[in-house]
Amino acid sequence: MAENAPDIRPGERAVDLPSACDAGVYFIGRIRTPWTRRIDCPKNPAEARARKAVCTIEVDARWAEGLMSIDSCPHLLVLYWMHEARRDLMIQVPRHHGEPRGTFALRSPVRPNPIAASVVDVLAIDGARLSVIGLDCLDGTPLLDLKPHFASADAAPGAEDSQADAEHPRAT
Amino acid sequence: MAENAPDIRPGERAVDLPSACDAGVYFIGRIRTPWTRRIDCPKNPAEARARKAVCTIEVDARWAEGLMSIDSCPHLLVLYWMHEARRDLMIQVPRHHGEPRGTFALRSPVRPNPIAASVVDVLAIDGARLSVIGLDCLDGTPLLDLKPHFASADAAPGAEDSQADAEHPRAT
Repeated sequence: MAENAPDIRPGERAVDLPSACDAGVYFIGRIRTPWTRRIDCPKNPAEARARKAVCTIEVDARWAEGLMSIDSCPHLLVLYWMHEARRDLMIQVPRHHGEPRGTFALRSPVRPNPIAASVVDVLAIDGARLSVIGLDCLDGTPLLDLKPHFASADAAPGAEDSQADAEHPRAT
Repeated sequence: MAENAPDIRPGERAVDLPSACDAGVYFIGRIRTPWTRRIDCPKNPAEARARKAVCTIEVDARWAEGLMSIDSCPHLLVLYWMHEARRDLMIQVPRHHGEPRGTFALRSPVRPNPIAASVVDVLAIDGARLSVIGLDCLDGTPLLDLKPHFASADAAPGAEDSQADAEHPRAT
């Protein structure tokens, strides 16, 4: 436990990370966004949609063939790697919230595996570049995966949102 | 390219994988399901819901503190590692479909980063074990992450589903 580690707020708790990882991921591209500082990023995908902020997903040449038929997918689930986030906090005290919460009850980028999941609207496809709305991440964020978005996999019947957003702030 | 690799169907295409990964993931627990063979798994989360198949998410002790406040999350987005899937197919020909499609236009477990994302309903919480409905994976599948499910992050306004499921079969 590293309660006194730098950048840890009162009430937050860290664990010792394992000495090795269990599997590896490839960065298959990059996400280009208008935001180079955390403070400028939209607070969450809803705010990104409200701002109509267009971002670009660039898929590296090695994997570009996997985009075949992507034009039949108006909505994509994008998985990306939040490369600047620490991974050891298990209890966090989100700013503007004040109450400690478990990491798995937060959308914070700080988590054991800093993988973000966001659904985007695809606006345009130009080769291996996709213009999308719905991302809120830093410019240069590594891309992990694109999947067609299905309501049956990616939404729960009756899951409501506005209160959840208020109760579970995303940003730390 | 390895067009003649074993277990590749006519029309499918593989790429050479990079010699090294770019980042590592921790397996933070396991998913216990009734299914030990791929053929027995539900075809997708919708079928898992229709079968009312209850699965158990077991979070390892190191990370269990991160479950604090999880009882305020009726729906979770579960990320897990499809450990038995190959990672090099960029064009796939799903069984029962017959048409080649790009990997990023499919929910197939075969993808560069075999990370699955499913929304589940939480039925019960017993310490670091969660009983859930909505998973369709093999018993023993490694767990990567749990997040509160928000419609604003995990669903697109107007994204419809039934035709998408038919057009983009999940299983290979």
